[in-house]
Amino acid sequence: MITVQQAEQIILENAADYGAEIVLFDEALGRVLAENIKTDRDLPAFNRVTMDGIAINFKAVEQGINMFTIKATQAAGDIPTDIEGIDECIEIMTGAALPDLVDTVIRYEDVEIKDGKATLLTSEIKKGQNQHLKGADKKQGEIILTPGQLITPAVISLVASVGETELRVKRIPRVVILSSGDELVEVGATPSAYQIRRSNSYMLQAILAQQGLKALVKHIPDEPEIIKQQLGLCLQNFDVILLSGGISMGKFDYIPQALKELQVAQLFHKVQQRPGKPFWFGKHSNGVVVFAFPGNPIASFMCTQRYFIPWLNASLGLSPKKTMYAVLADDFSFQPQLEYYLQVKLHFNEQGQLLAAPVEGNGSGDFANLADTDAFMELPLEKSEFKKGEVYPIWLFNQL
Amino acid sequence: MITVQQAEQIILENAADYGAEIVLFDEALGRVLAENIKTDRDLPAFNRVTMDGIAINFKAVEQGINMFTIKATQAAGDIPTDIEGIDECIEIMTGAALPDLVDTVIRYEDVEIKDGKATLLTSEIKKGQNQHLKGADKKQGEIILTPGQLITPAVISLVASVGETELRVKRIPRVVILSSGDELVEVGATPSAYQIRRSNSYMLQAILAQQGLKALVKHIPDEPEIIKQQLGLCLQNFDVILLSGGISMGKFDYIPQALKELQVAQLFHKVQQRPGKPFWFGKHSNGVVVFAFPGNPIASFMCTQRYFIPWLNASLGLSPKKTMYAVLADDFSFQPQLEYYLQVKLHFNEQGQLLAAPVEGNGSGDFANLADTDAFMELPLEKSEFKKGEVYPIWLFNQL
Repeated sequence: MITVQQAEQIILENAADYGAEIVLFDEALGRVLAENIKTDRDLPAFNRVTMDGIAINFKAVEQGINMFTIKATQAAGDIPTDIEGIDECIEIMTGAALPDLVDTVIRYEDVEIKDGKATLLTSEIKKGQNQHLKGADKKQGEIILTPGQLITPAVISLVASVGETELRVKRIPRVVILSSGDELVEVGATPSAYQIRRSNSYMLQAILAQQGLKALVKHIPDEPEIIKQQLGLCLQNFDVILLSGGISMGKFDYIPQALKELQVAQLFHKVQQRPGKPFWFGKHSNGVVVFAFPGNPIASFMCTQRYFIPWLNASLGLSPKKTMYAVLADDFSFQPQLEYYLQVKLHFNEQGQLLAAPVEGNGSGDFANLADTDAFMELPLEKSEFKKGEVYPIWLFNQL
Repeated sequence: MITVQQAEQIILENAADYGAEIVLFDEALGRVLAENIKTDRDLPAFNRVTMDGIAINFKAVEQGINMFTIKATQAAGDIPTDIEGIDECIEIMTGAALPDLVDTVIRYEDVEIKDGKATLLTSEIKKGQNQHLKGADKKQGEIILTPGQLITPAVISLVASVGETELRVKRIPRVVILSSGDELVEVGATPSAYQIRRSNSYMLQAILAQQGLKALVKHIPDEPEIIKQQLGLCLQNFDVILLSGGISMGKFDYIPQALKELQVAQLFHKVQQRPGKPFWFGKHSNGVVVFAFPGNPIASFMCTQRYFIPWLNASLGLSPKKTMYAVLADDFSFQPQLEYYLQVKLHFNEQGQLLAAPVEGNGSGDFANLADTDAFMELPLEKSEFKKGEVYPIWLFNQL
C-alpha cells in the first residue's frame, strides 16, 4: 500500500495538456490563460487627471499667481485644449488627458470659481499633483499576463483595458462521473428498505462545477457486460473517468476486472489513508485517466479535493496551490497507521491564526457533517496523538 | 463624511428579501436554501455494512466457533437473507443491509474462504464491528438543513440522499451595472489618444458572477436626458443599480442630479476611505437600491467586495462572514485620516498564521496589481503607521 505522498506524485505525473481554445473575454472567468497578453498602449495611455478641478502650469504658483482665467472646460474623453498663458487654466474632469502646457491639477474643493475666473483657496500645491502619469503602470508592448494565469475579475478588467475581446485559454478535460451498484436508486425514486439514493455523483459533479468543469453523470448497473461496454464507450469519449464505488474487494465489484480487460493499467490501488483507502488510479494507453474512488461519500469527497483538483490544476497549467496550515483547536487521537483526514471547522483568531476545530464524525459514511465543515486537516500517519496547538496542513473545501 | 463602519451599517440596514423560487437540486450550487430539509428515513436507513467480508452472530465468536458455512451472498441493494444457526455466515458486501440475526462483519482480509466455508484468520473481533448503525447519523423526520444554508457540494449530496429533487432557494436580486462617461469606448474599439476602454463594468460583472449573480452591463453616454431616461428604466426593471463612475464633483457628472430628479434618496455620499471616497449610496421609494461607485477601478473593485457582497449575502439570508485576520508582513505608512485598503498577497506560514505582504500600488487607478494580489487589508483611519507583525482584518477576493 502506498502513502498519500506517493499517490499524489503518481497522479501529478499523469497530469496532461488538453490543448487550448478561444473564448470571449467576458465569458472567461475561472479559465486559465494560454497566451501572453501585452499592453497595446502605455497604461495609463496619457497623463490622466485623478481629481475634478482646474489644471494649471506650476510656474504660475511659483510666480505667485493665484487667480486664473478659465480657458476651456475639458471632460474625460475630450481632445485636450491647451492654455495660451500661465495665468490661464483649464477646468478639467477626472479621467481627462492633461493638455501639454499644464502640469498640475487643483481640486474643486480648493478653488473658488466666479465669472469665468478660478481663485486658489490653498497654498499647499505640489507640482504634478492629481495626475496619473502616462505609462506609470505599464509601458506599451509590455507583457502583463502570461500563460497559466487564472482568469479572475481583475484579469478580465486588465484584458478588457488592452482590447483583448477573445482569449486563448486552456481546454478543460472532458470528465464523466460514473456510479455503479444496484443498491443505488435515482434521487427522485423511493428506495426500498435496503437501497439508498445516488447522491455521490451529484456531489462530485458540484465539486467539479466549482472548478468550472461541467461533468456528465451516468449510472451503470452491476452487470459485468454492461459495465465493460459502458466503460469502453467512456474511454473513447472522455479524457477522464471518475468512478464512485465498485472498487473494493466485494464479490460484485466487477469494475477492476472490466478496467483490466479494457487495458486500463492500474497505477496504484489502495492508499494509506482514511477515509479513501481503496482508492484506485489507472491510465489507458490512449491517455484517458481513471480515478476510482471508494463509494463512501466522505472518501469520494476527500479524494476529489485531495487528488483530482490538484491533478486538474496541474493539467491546466496552474501553479500548485500554496499549502494552507491551521492550528488544531482540540486534542485528537487516531491510532491506525493511516494518514487521517479530519473534518474541521475553521475560524481566524485576532492573532491572524487559522484555528481548526475538529467536527466529530463517523469516518465511514456520515456526510451530514460535511455541510458544517470547511476543510480536511491532514494528520500524518506517523503520529497517533495530535495535540491542541499543533499545526497541520489543511485542504479547504468551502470558501473562507 | 461618514466612516466605513457607518457606511456598512447603512448598507446592511437596506438589505432586502427578494423572495424565493424553485430550482432543480443539481442546479442549486451556490444558491441559498429557503426551506427546511428533513430526512425521509433514518440515515443510514438500515444497519449498513462498511466492509466487504462475512457477517456473523458475535455469540459464535464467544463460543469459540471459527469456521462458518456460507448461507448466502448478499450485495448492496439485495433483500437480506438471514442465517439459521450461529455456525452460519452471510458473505456480504459494503453498502448491504445487515440481516437481523447477524451483528458483526469480518472483512475478507481476515477470512479464508474455501468450499463454501469461511474460516476466521484473526481473533481480534469486536461485537458490532464494520457496520454503520441505522439512524446513527440522523433520525427520520429530523431537520438536517435550514433556511439560510449556502448550497455547497456536500449540501447537494445531502438533499439528494433524502430525495429532494427540487429546492426552494432565495431569489437573487436583479442587478444592472451601468457605466457612464464619454471617455469610455467599447472593449473591441480602438480608443483615441484621450479615451480608454470600458473595463470596469466587466470586472464588476465577473465579481458578481463569482457570487452566482448574472448582471446586465450597460453603458450610458454623458447626456443628461439620456442618463435620466436610462436610470428611470433601470429603476423599473432591476432591484439594484450598480454605477461605476460619474459621481464625483465634475461638471459633466450628471448622475447625482438625475438620481435626485428620479426620487432616489441619497443615504450617504463620501466615505472616509481610500480608495473609494466618493462612494454614493441611495434608495428609491420603490425599494431599488443604488450603489454608485467611483470610476477608479480599484475603488469600484474594493467597494464591490467591501459593501456590495455583504449586502447581497444579507439580502439572501446568509449569516455574516466571519472576519478574517492576517499579519502584516512589512511596515506600511499611510497619513490621511482615511481607512486605507491595502492590496496584499497572502501566504500561510507553518505556524498557521496568514501573512499579508503589501503590494505597492498607485492608489488612484493602477489595477494591474490587482491580478497579483489576494485581498485588501483594512487599515484603520485612526492610525498612520502600521508595523510588521501587527494584525488587521482582511477582505479576501481571490481563493486561497
